[in-house]
Amino acid sequence: MLACYFQVCGLGREEVVMSAHTDFVGQQMQGGFNPPVRSLMDIDFYKFTMGQLIFKHFRDVDATFTLINRDKSIPLAMIVPQGELEKYLDYARTLSLSSSSGISTDMALLRGMRVYGANMFFEEYMQFLEKFRLPSYRLRRVGDQYELTFSGSWVEVSMWETIALAIISELFYRKLMESLSRYELDVLYARAKDKVWRKLEILARNPDIRFADFGQRRRHSFLWQQWVLGACKEVLPEQLTGTSNTWMAFHHNMMPIGTNAHELPMALVALASSDEEMWAAQYETPRLWQEMYGPGLRIFLTDTYTSKEFFRGAPEWLAHDWRGMRQDSGDPFRIARLYIKWLQSHGVDPKTKLIIFSDGLDVEPMRKLQGEFGGKIGTSYGWGTLFTNDFIGCYPKNPYFRPFSLVCKLKDIDGIPAVKLSDNIQKATGNESEIARYIKIFNADDRDSIRPDV
Amino acid sequence: MLACYFQVCGLGREEVVMSAHTDFVGQQMQGGFNPPVRSLMDIDFYKFTMGQLIFKHFRDVDATFTLINRDKSIPLAMIVPQGELEKYLDYARTLSLSSSSGISTDMALLRGMRVYGANMFFEEYMQFLEKFRLPSYRLRRVGDQYELTFSGSWVEVSMWETIALAIISELFYRKLMESLSRYELDVLYARAKDKVWRKLEILARNPDIRFADFGQRRRHSFLWQQWVLGACKEVLPEQLTGTSNTWMAFHHNMMPIGTNAHELPMALVALASSDEEMWAAQYETPRLWQEMYGPGLRIFLTDTYTSKEFFRGAPEWLAHDWRGMRQDSGDPFRIARLYIKWLQSHGVDPKTKLIIFSDGLDVEPMRKLQGEFGGKIGTSYGWGTLFTNDFIGCYPKNPYFRPFSLVCKLKDIDGIPAVKLSDNIQKATGNESEIARYIKIFNADDRDSIRPDV
Repeated sequence: MLACYFQVCGLGREEVVMSAHTDFVGQQMQGGFNPPVRSLMDIDFYKFTMGQLIFKHFRDVDATFTLINRDKSIPLAMIVPQGELEKYLDYARTLSLSSSSGISTDMALLRGMRVYGANMFFEEYMQFLEKFRLPSYRLRRVGDQYELTFSGSWVEVSMWETIALAIISELFYRKLMESLSRYELDVLYARAKDKVWRKLEILARNPDIRFADFGQRRRHSFLWQQWVLGACKEVLPEQLTGTSNTWMAFHHNMMPIGTNAHELPMALVALASSDEEMWAAQYETPRLWQEMYGPGLRIFLTDTYTSKEFFRGAPEWLAHDWRGMRQDSGDPFRIARLYIKWLQSHGVDPKTKLIIFSDGLDVEPMRKLQGEFGGKIGTSYGWGTLFTNDFIGCYPKNPYFRPFSLVCKLKDIDGIPAVKLSDNIQKATGNESEIARYIKIFNADDRDSIRPDV
Repeated sequence: MLACYFQVCGLGREEVVMSAHTDFVGQQMQGGFNPPVRSLMDIDFYKFTMGQLIFKHFRDVDATFTLINRDKSIPLAMIVPQGELEKYLDYARTLSLSSSSGISTDMALLRGMRVYGANMFFEEYMQFLEKFRLPSYRLRRVGDQYELTFSGSWVEVSMWETIALAIISELFYRKLMESLSRYELDVLYARAKDKVWRKLEILARNPDIRFADFGQRRRHSFLWQQWVLGACKEVLPEQLTGTSNTWMAFHHNMMPIGTNAHELPMALVALASSDEEMWAAQYETPRLWQEMYGPGLRIFLTDTYTSKEFFRGAPEWLAHDWRGMRQDSGDPFRIARLYIKWLQSHGVDPKTKLIIFSDGLDVEPMRKLQGEFGGKIGTSYGWGTLFTNDFIGCYPKNPYFRPFSLVCKLKDIDGIPAVKLSDNIQKATGNESEIARYIKIFNADDRDSIRPDV
């Protein structure tokens, strides 16, 4: 009937905004085929940068990744039907970075990117990616939860991490939304837009805060990530430094962000032969990394076996030749002070270096950290789940509309169990006896205990 | 680029909500021809019910209506360009209830409606409407304001009232929105949706409050009225009793609401010859009305020359044969008590009668009135501008995003100035000496003074 009313004339700008809502019931395609992840580029960029390192040095190593929900109050398997999940995991396995026509935009983008210097990806790895398909998975229901396991060649199974997370995350929220009426759905999004916009307005009043989007893996949905990124680009073009999502980066002309993460030191340490070699292996990741990548990508991670111990034994060159560090667990104030002190002990001015905070951030923690460290050291923020998935309170009838702690971690490497200690006891991964052994090896007596919300 | 991403598969329901926003820039048709009112049915229903009475009894009477903005802090003529306004007023004059094909849905709806009994509109009036076009107007810029005047046959010029108001109102908000970016516009609507939804949620917790939409004339836009009505129908199907907007009523299967308004007593009193006849003429409207319409439409208006005086002289049959009254100015608690007392003085149980409150309502006043009068008398609420146009605070950068007091009133009838005293001194209309004369004739010493917000 609206169409009828408007057939006389064209639609105005604000009318398009409105009529979209008014008409969309007619366009519903519920029950159709609607994959949450539709491109292998819809993945965190670090999967490519780490992937190339794994490809070069550990091509024959096998690994197992396990995806679990740490938040048992969310009965994931009761909400997301197993058949639905399998359908879209299977669909992801059909995706390819190449195309049957021989002309692949995705491959051209990866080969042609120059933001971190020319030819950052070598041709052999590109050819591997060209043929790459996601390997098989194993899905098991354990009570109200799923356990999703990926076993096989490390360089292949590693690619599942953020893709599998993004698929489950979006399917979960879609399922919650299925019972919502047309207007409830509209108001849900209205409230979420208002929420994120208010956050952006606060950040605009704090122009020293520069941040990147790290929110692909636990996002509300692909389109929602696209919306928040678009809004953010408009409101804070100078403060938004990039996105970890490769697809979003290339399609929105943003910097793709992603360096090395826990799976590298976890694997390298696990593969070492003795306690001494294990301890030393925590520095193997940055050593191999700097052989491969220039200064723009040289951001080290300190918390895999606790930051205090990392800095205690960290080689001199990490202070001088590396751009900065990423803080991903524990008390960020304590860790940042450790880094500053360590830089100073090596005669390096912290103001010339960067710390990227990335642990469960939101606007208020960013403001506090910036208040403390602004002017003392270069800062950046990896804003994740509370950027791309803050629907808290937007539909009060259903308390499940909140982010939850879905993670996909390296479980073992060539059959050897992998361990992360973390600066936060609650974010440790690995079995208990192995964790105990690692605590001794890494003198990890100085960890915080902070309940991770997301 | 989004289309590209999604060409693989169909869109899901929530993705349509989202993608509408993401894509709409491409669909923009700014500067195009985009009339705010596109149908003569997009008018308050009382224009038809009153129109038939005027057509029957006062076909040869001339009238002048004047549209003015009472809120001088809104520089209307500086915001809405005169050419734009003329373009859409002129377009409205091309509208017709008939169609060149000879088959008119609009006429069929009016002829075929049965909600107030069969054949409520007689054929001669229908034939008049079939040929009807809006008559000419005179638009004058006075400082920062417009003065829009309609002179001619009363039954014709009367039809301009809510159409002209709705045109100016929508053009004003469109102009404010022109400078908004894509995301600002999206967030503006998101916040307005959240606001009205919260109001509906409060009303849902007060199921005794039954109300009708009276918000056509000062709405934000046609599509916004459509959205809020749709949302309201979904959330409160039992509490929403209808709409004054004829188009919305017929296209959303709702009750069209509209009885007699001030222009009838104002004209009839002005046309009377002596002071005594003028005083008596205030009851002419209900007398003529009940000859024409059945009980469903028998709602009288008391405040044209003050409610206290109206009740003092009101005929017995208004207490017995009429369904109720509408309260449109002054202290609603005082007026409702006057009505209750008057009904009791005629031996009528107020619980069998209805009072419709319609003066600048919003949720909190409705709750208070319902708390006071629920169970004592039948109540209903005509919820207008703060239902269809509450964007207050939704775009804080521009304080003009608020409703303002735009009115279109009968100025003179057959050359005789028309006067409304109202139960609120600030809502009186007419020139000062005439008002003074009327105050004496109607013993109007008991008026409230309340600044009208909308």
